[in-house]
Amino acid sequence: MTRTRVDLTDLQIEHLRTLVSGQVSTNSSVLELHSHDESAATPVLPSAVVMVESMQEVSQVLAYCNREKIPVVAFGAGTSLEGHVVPLLGGVSLDLSGMNKILEISADDLFARVQPGVHRIALNEKLSSHGLFFSVDPGADATIGGMAATGAAGTTTVRYGSMRENVMALTAVLADGTIIHTGRATRKLSAGYDLTRLLVGSEGTLAIITELTVRLFGIPEKMAAAVVRFPSLTEGVAAATAVVRSGIAVARCEFLDAKSIGYINVHENLSLTQAPTLFFEFHGSPIGVEEDAKSVREIVSEFGGSEFEWTTDEGQRRKLWQARHSAHWAILGANPGMASVSTDMAVPLSHLAQAVEMAEETLTNSPYLFAVVGHVADGNFHCQILVDPNKPEQQVHVREITHAMTSKIIAMGGTCTGEHGIGSGKMKSLVEETGEPAVQMMRAIKQALDPNAILNPGKIFKEAL
Amino acid sequence: MTRTRVDLTDLQIEHLRTLVSGQVSTNSSVLELHSHDESAATPVLPSAVVMVESMQEVSQVLAYCNREKIPVVAFGAGTSLEGHVVPLLGGVSLDLSGMNKILEISADDLFARVQPGVHRIALNEKLSSHGLFFSVDPGADATIGGMAATGAAGTTTVRYGSMRENVMALTAVLADGTIIHTGRATRKLSAGYDLTRLLVGSEGTLAIITELTVRLFGIPEKMAAAVVRFPSLTEGVAAATAVVRSGIAVARCEFLDAKSIGYINVHENLSLTQAPTLFFEFHGSPIGVEEDAKSVREIVSEFGGSEFEWTTDEGQRRKLWQARHSAHWAILGANPGMASVSTDMAVPLSHLAQAVEMAEETLTNSPYLFAVVGHVADGNFHCQILVDPNKPEQQVHVREITHAMTSKIIAMGGTCTGEHGIGSGKMKSLVEETGEPAVQMMRAIKQALDPNAILNPGKIFKEAL
Repeated sequence: MTRTRVDLTDLQIEHLRTLVSGQVSTNSSVLELHSHDESAATPVLPSAVVMVESMQEVSQVLAYCNREKIPVVAFGAGTSLEGHVVPLLGGVSLDLSGMNKILEISADDLFARVQPGVHRIALNEKLSSHGLFFSVDPGADATIGGMAATGAAGTTTVRYGSMRENVMALTAVLADGTIIHTGRATRKLSAGYDLTRLLVGSEGTLAIITELTVRLFGIPEKMAAAVVRFPSLTEGVAAATAVVRSGIAVARCEFLDAKSIGYINVHENLSLTQAPTLFFEFHGSPIGVEEDAKSVREIVSEFGGSEFEWTTDEGQRRKLWQARHSAHWAILGANPGMASVSTDMAVPLSHLAQAVEMAEETLTNSPYLFAVVGHVADGNFHCQILVDPNKPEQQVHVREITHAMTSKIIAMGGTCTGEHGIGSGKMKSLVEETGEPAVQMMRAIKQALDPNAILNPGKIFKEAL
Repeated sequence: MTRTRVDLTDLQIEHLRTLVSGQVSTNSSVLELHSHDESAATPVLPSAVVMVESMQEVSQVLAYCNREKIPVVAFGAGTSLEGHVVPLLGGVSLDLSGMNKILEISADDLFARVQPGVHRIALNEKLSSHGLFFSVDPGADATIGGMAATGAAGTTTVRYGSMRENVMALTAVLADGTIIHTGRATRKLSAGYDLTRLLVGSEGTLAIITELTVRLFGIPEKMAAAVVRFPSLTEGVAAATAVVRSGIAVARCEFLDAKSIGYINVHENLSLTQAPTLFFEFHGSPIGVEEDAKSVREIVSEFGGSEFEWTTDEGQRRKLWQARHSAHWAILGANPGMASVSTDMAVPLSHLAQAVEMAEETLTNSPYLFAVVGHVADGNFHCQILVDPNKPEQQVHVREITHAMTSKIIAMGGTCTGEHGIGSGKMKSLVEETGEPAVQMMRAIKQALDPNAILNPGKIFKEAL
């Protein structure tokens, strides 16, 4: 890319201040906060941070930045894992965290309409009094807008789908400030191009999302959790695959390797047996969840599953999933000063055991600390690999290793990313996976909608500019 | 639109013959067959019909037609209901029915890879020996390629989703002949723009689909059907809404008005009680389906549901759904020489009873025969309205009536099309529903990918040309 960093002039900053009611900040600690996400991607400072409070402000800021050719990167909670929010070319970091209103909850029609800065946990707290929940759970307390932009998924996707299935309608602002409405709050829709799903997962490169209508579910009558241990990683993964094939509608099914269990034991003050482990969750009627758990127990025992524990106690269930979701921070907490590169490969289920073994072997032969967790019922797993952020050559080296692993995954019919997105780190893998013509098609769409390439430049693919 | 009809020269036809192994036909009965779908849309003859047998042939034909600016409309089974396959500007009708191979069935990974001309029923016959099924069931024996292009759904969508949720990956040919691959056969994917879902429902205006990977499900252990009658349409619809809200995972839930029941009694030689009726289907374990049916029976009785009949007999179940799916042909069969305009409105569930009442009242006050059926659990219903194809003014009049009805639906937060698509008849409603800026965004995408607007011109929106 021949484009160079854009630093705003004082006049440009003054003009931006006339467009928004919130702050336009060039304070160094504010810039630093907007320079990185939770990945090991090299931070880059924006030139200014613009805090917006309405769709109209987003529209005005974009129209201005488009005229001035100032890059704009949307920022929510900063919990992305592929450097999505890093403003590679400086310019404006557009902070949407002030747009955090829940605008409507329709219990009858099972949807909520929210602003993009609403956090996942806050939404679910509000929904629980209606007996409802928003299902997509990536672990981190991300914003709903950010989750849509990255096409997030998580531990419940096996049962309830990812953001692609759970965003019904959007309001968004295009690069030139045009406000568009996509989708409807209906359960079915076939009206023209599916712009909603084009924007979901577009990583802020096509539009800035300013309002979302998301699908809700009723809180199940009964929820139960189960834990089971395996002699080896391969047997654990094979057991999970067998459970999925049986057709039992598990609500969650997560794999953690022995190392991950060790880290979360320390982080969460637990004493789980340090062995390859599957965590399950079941949703349904009291009889239904018990039947499901019984069937799962039978299946996993054929793969050497032992110490099967199950609980319908709400406190214990929450504690278990809190532990699972802390894995990312647990490994970092145990290794202070280190940063994490997380892979996100997914394969068809029949290749999963082979894929996880390949990853385990490759990383065991590398000089880096790592642990493996996985949404195994979806064929999706993460290797969390630790690097020293002060040794950039380590990150380059790890990227080489993961790229080679990803090539093998792609050869198995898999994908380089099940839920984290491409960001700036996986652009080569995207070409390898889908082919240059499809990436060229994405580029053509980008160019048609954002001809000055101001929206999150340098992500997903290199722009034509 | 200022564009005019394109008739191929003899030289162009000769050249097309060198590009394909199948026929290039200008035979009048072949042209006639490719001039219409199953809707009342005015037929238009293509200039030539080109039978293709491979992705490479599709690529070569498109590259040539793009250079020569010849319009190309894909044709599968011709079962669409919004005039999608009508070649409004003449040119080539590209017949994909010869590309009808099932390329791969993966029972382990629950997907099938098929050519676009494979018919839905043929695929399911093949799958049944593997204990699997392809879930999307629009009634008609459409091709899988056509179903993807229109974003089809059907009676099982409430449980298993529409084509949007069930197409995992595509191979397609762009207007200039470029072959692209989208998606992967993985259960999760977050790799770049969701081109798969952009093409699903794009009605042949962005690319010609040449291969599809579709999601499969295991045939449930037990399937049961139930029928229940209501004093009025409103009570039937309200009962269906209550069933959905209860969270019972019905596999199908269909409403038929008394007139529809009358028509199918004649057509299928049945003697169903001629009253507003709900048909249900349940999938699960033997205990599960019985529990579900019992719960549904309790709920519907609160809405005056009576004569509740249920069966696990496979023959009776099939007969019932055969009857439901024959409704379209039954009303036409009882009114020989007439053609049908089918509405396809969908609303959030809380507006469904009001929406169906509004439609019933509007059409009762019109001079046309009609009947109402609905995928009511999805908030989607069809009014089938009969017109005399020899009196084009009737179709214009009916379009005025349905357009006015649609405006009311849109005001309720609904959509002009839940599953049939926009075609050429609902372009105004699309603008009303989603707004001119979003339609302009669709147009920009179209222009970027098909600058000569050769692919199915005059559908979804007016091109910029």
